[in-house]
Amino acid sequence: MTDPRLRHDPVTGMWSVVTPGRSLRPHDGGARGPAPCPFCAGNERLTPPEVEALRPGGDRADGPGWTVRVVPNKFPVFAGGHEVVVHTPQHDAALHELTVAEIEAILDTYRRRLAAHDDAGAAAALVIMNQGAAAGASLAHSHGQVFALPMVPPALVTEQANFALYLKEHSRCLLCDIVERQRSEPSHLVIDGEVVAWTPQASRWPFETWLAPAAHAERFEAAATPALAQALKRVLSALAEVTAGAPLNFWLHTAPFASESPFHWHLEIAPRTTTIAGFELASGVAIDIVDPADAAAQLRAALGAGLGS
Amino acid sequence: MTDPRLRHDPVTGMWSVVTPGRSLRPHDGGARGPAPCPFCAGNERLTPPEVEALRPGGDRADGPGWTVRVVPNKFPVFAGGHEVVVHTPQHDAALHELTVAEIEAILDTYRRRLAAHDDAGAAAALVIMNQGAAAGASLAHSHGQVFALPMVPPALVTEQANFALYLKEHSRCLLCDIVERQRSEPSHLVIDGEVVAWTPQASRWPFETWLAPAAHAERFEAAATPALAQALKRVLSALAEVTAGAPLNFWLHTAPFASESPFHWHLEIAPRTTTIAGFELASGVAIDIVDPADAAAQLRAALGAGLGS
Repeated sequence: MTDPRLRHDPVTGMWSVVTPGRSLRPHDGGARGPAPCPFCAGNERLTPPEVEALRPGGDRADGPGWTVRVVPNKFPVFAGGHEVVVHTPQHDAALHELTVAEIEAILDTYRRRLAAHDDAGAAAALVIMNQGAAAGASLAHSHGQVFALPMVPPALVTEQANFALYLKEHSRCLLCDIVERQRSEPSHLVIDGEVVAWTPQASRWPFETWLAPAAHAERFEAAATPALAQALKRVLSALAEVTAGAPLNFWLHTAPFASESPFHWHLEIAPRTTTIAGFELASGVAIDIVDPADAAAQLRAALGAGLGS
Repeated sequence: MTDPRLRHDPVTGMWSVVTPGRSLRPHDGGARGPAPCPFCAGNERLTPPEVEALRPGGDRADGPGWTVRVVPNKFPVFAGGHEVVVHTPQHDAALHELTVAEIEAILDTYRRRLAAHDDAGAAAALVIMNQGAAAGASLAHSHGQVFALPMVPPALVTEQANFALYLKEHSRCLLCDIVERQRSEPSHLVIDGEVVAWTPQASRWPFETWLAPAAHAERFEAAATPALAQALKRVLSALAEVTAGAPLNFWLHTAPFASESPFHWHLEIAPRTTTIAGFELASGVAIDIVDPADAAAQLRAALGAGLGS
């Protein structure tokens, strides 16, 4: 952690990265009216040259004809390791509105990017999606981001420590046990199957939902994606229904690349129906105004009505 | 921590309090148009009976004639210990627009409420202010909140541990040393004096600013408030100027009531010009798009132009 922009506060213990250049990045609309979307088919010249793209028709790079397109972020948080994955050439399609096959191709793209960053020597990588301005998306066109990091980020350090402690005390994987509990006491269960979805008992956000493989797996990169694509489409569809299309973030936690520490990959989804305010910032305690058991019941009801299947 | 609504996530290590009742609280405006403001003079019947109020004219409780009024929060996060401090009878005055004497009376009110909660056996208390809807304020009329807590909240536990570790390693107070460094290398200094203000080197937010007494003091309740009132007015005025009136939160960290652990009280101010998005949530690393040294220079320039004096 020798990057001078990465800083640790000695009082709060919190981390920050100082990136003045990012204040220049474009936003939809604003005072000068709508700008052309750099993620739409036909506007490829508005992004840096692509890192990779799925081109079923074999069209050449940096023109149209792609279904999923990966470009470097023009305003990187960490130089060299910040990519945008454009989920679809369609401007207005949310991720859950794509087909299961299309979502699977997106997830496979994330797997390939993670493997590439592992090969390139990153310490860890994160995949995130911001959907909606209130969730931090500066552009509306559906996209995710891959961050290849020179260090294991603090949130993953903490999770690794919790997995290691649990293994030492119980000789079991922490998340295997959590998943098993969701299945045996299904009050918080949203989807059962090869990929399980549930609302965590200590949810920080109304309708917070996690997905993880039922079978132990440390690395998302090594995972099969068909079951995940279907589960993700169903969960995001149910969340869009019960939150009336609220902005949301999701992020993937997979084992850091060089790690020998126990882990179990999972996806955390945070709908953003509430604001992080003074109490949360002062206390380090989130306020969740929807009981996660109620949230799970509402999500199951939405799925029972046939959503996302 | 036996409250069943207070929950700890075994994977992330994070805390949450599940409070479904708070989804019912009122908000300004909305679909049914503006409602009468429960914090305005003349509308005292719209709040629960007051806990205390400053009434220079000696008017009776729960009628007009007050300058600062404390009422129980109708939608408490923790039962019994969640109060609203209405800063002024004027609907449209922001805290920094009040006089230094008015701000001092507000700070004295916070001191009295903290002392009362100490006497009543709380483990710790937090004072927070949310200003603007994007900072979580559900009502626009200037007010703060006091939370008396049955436990020391996780953010204070962490800070206490950091103070204790620093004392052990350096035989000095961590925040005394930080304040001294701001004064000797003033690149991040905003205000010097009995109360010092600076932009932390690891700022999590553009223009994040901290205030603390230059002389070591564990407890805000025991502090004299004239210098703080003036410093707070100046800093909030400068922040309003350089952020064009952005929403903001501030929160007070004072030593937990029963604690023997070293501490040094301070106020953390977070202007909310950016959104906490997927990267921050996934990584535990904040992204600060304004270098805190630049932020301090801008705040000093605003103060040099005579703001808030």
